[in-house]
Amino acid sequence: MYKNIKVIGFDADDTLWVNETYFREAELEFGKLMQQYETINKIDQELFKIEIDNLPIYGYGVKGFVLSMMETALILSNNQVSQKTMNAIIDIGKTMLNKPVELLDGVEKTLKSLSQSHRLIMATKGDLLDQERKLEKSGLFKYFHHIEVMSDKKDSDYTKLLSHLDIKPEQFLMIGNSLKSDVLPLVNIGANAVHVPFHTTWQHETIEKSVLNNNDYTTVENIQDVLKLFEK
Amino acid sequence: MYKNIKVIGFDADDTLWVNETYFREAELEFGKLMQQYETINKIDQELFKIEIDNLPIYGYGVKGFVLSMMETALILSNNQVSQKTMNAIIDIGKTMLNKPVELLDGVEKTLKSLSQSHRLIMATKGDLLDQERKLEKSGLFKYFHHIEVMSDKKDSDYTKLLSHLDIKPEQFLMIGNSLKSDVLPLVNIGANAVHVPFHTTWQHETIEKSVLNNNDYTTVENIQDVLKLFEK
Repeated sequence: MYKNIKVIGFDADDTLWVNETYFREAELEFGKLMQQYETINKIDQELFKIEIDNLPIYGYGVKGFVLSMMETALILSNNQVSQKTMNAIIDIGKTMLNKPVELLDGVEKTLKSLSQSHRLIMATKGDLLDQERKLEKSGLFKYFHHIEVMSDKKDSDYTKLLSHLDIKPEQFLMIGNSLKSDVLPLVNIGANAVHVPFHTTWQHETIEKSVLNNNDYTTVENIQDVLKLFEK
Repeated sequence: MYKNIKVIGFDADDTLWVNETYFREAELEFGKLMQQYETINKIDQELFKIEIDNLPIYGYGVKGFVLSMMETALILSNNQVSQKTMNAIIDIGKTMLNKPVELLDGVEKTLKSLSQSHRLIMATKGDLLDQERKLEKSGLFKYFHHIEVMSDKKDSDYTKLLSHLDIKPEQFLMIGNSLKSDVLPLVNIGANAVHVPFHTTWQHETIEKSVLNNNDYTTVENIQDVLKLFEK
């Protein structure tokens, strides 16, 4: 099916390894720390709102998430939040940044096989240092030509990436768990995309199904099913 | 003098635009916020120590700096720091991330001229989003082929960069203000480097002059003097 692909891009978080689960766990912990001030539901909503407000300056990744939790704590508590809680929030972040890397099923087999025939890159929008740490710990480093850290994953960001890689859209295949970030923009610019859903997706990453109507991309259940798409 | 250069890398902060000055201002402000607990000298020392301790997980950039200020405030005040002060620390970070971009003298002229004959890249270790913001605001975007965000600037990081750029060390010239990050590693791997000193350098970036003895690189006073090195 994919004959003329020169470079394959892999999203990292929740495509190669577990990530969103750790954010959900961190939010639960933050909810417990703040429960004397508000309902869990309100805490979740306020944190999400502040994260989105801060996205233009903080971008994606753990550090911006921690700063947004701190801001949310101060606001929700009406500046009553304790210094102990603030320390606990800092610790939530450090724990996240020191988490072991939990590879998703079939990832290594897929990368090993595809790296023999294609140039593979990791295309992610987290913190570079954090992604490099995970790549190092995962043992997957050897399969990738390099890491592309993207500040966002919109159409124009992928267009920039392709010009940097010096290839045409039809020569690029992106594989990832987010329809919004790893699939739709690629379809829009005439490149190829495979969607590998992850069980948890951040609400900012979900999009309406209808947006994708009439657009062409492939969905697989497990990442190793991608290999079959190269056999046909 | 430089005949066979294919790609020229520019450091960004304090090479193209003012940056360290804003960190120094932020530290002064932080010192004022904390002065009821400690001497300015002790506050500076403790913040620096915590920044260095956190460097392996936070990396470089404003967000990690803010998280380290927060941690320092909690430690130095023995958990007595007020919620008002914690808000002020968050605001210091947001102010830094919203600063206008102040180009250094001669930068635009230099980039304009060199971009006509060479592929230019920006090679920086700050936050990608923050660097993209500055590049966008600066109007310098058009001169660069792309941005390389590096998690660190050691010998091995530059070796990785050159393999990614698909060029030999002798075909690469790096221009920057930090002897430690922009000059020495390049000299070590057989690439070319020009040092353009900036008046303020973070103490973590200073190295002993002697380390560089017998190593070959060029120092210019103003970035536009680089143009003369291509004339000879």
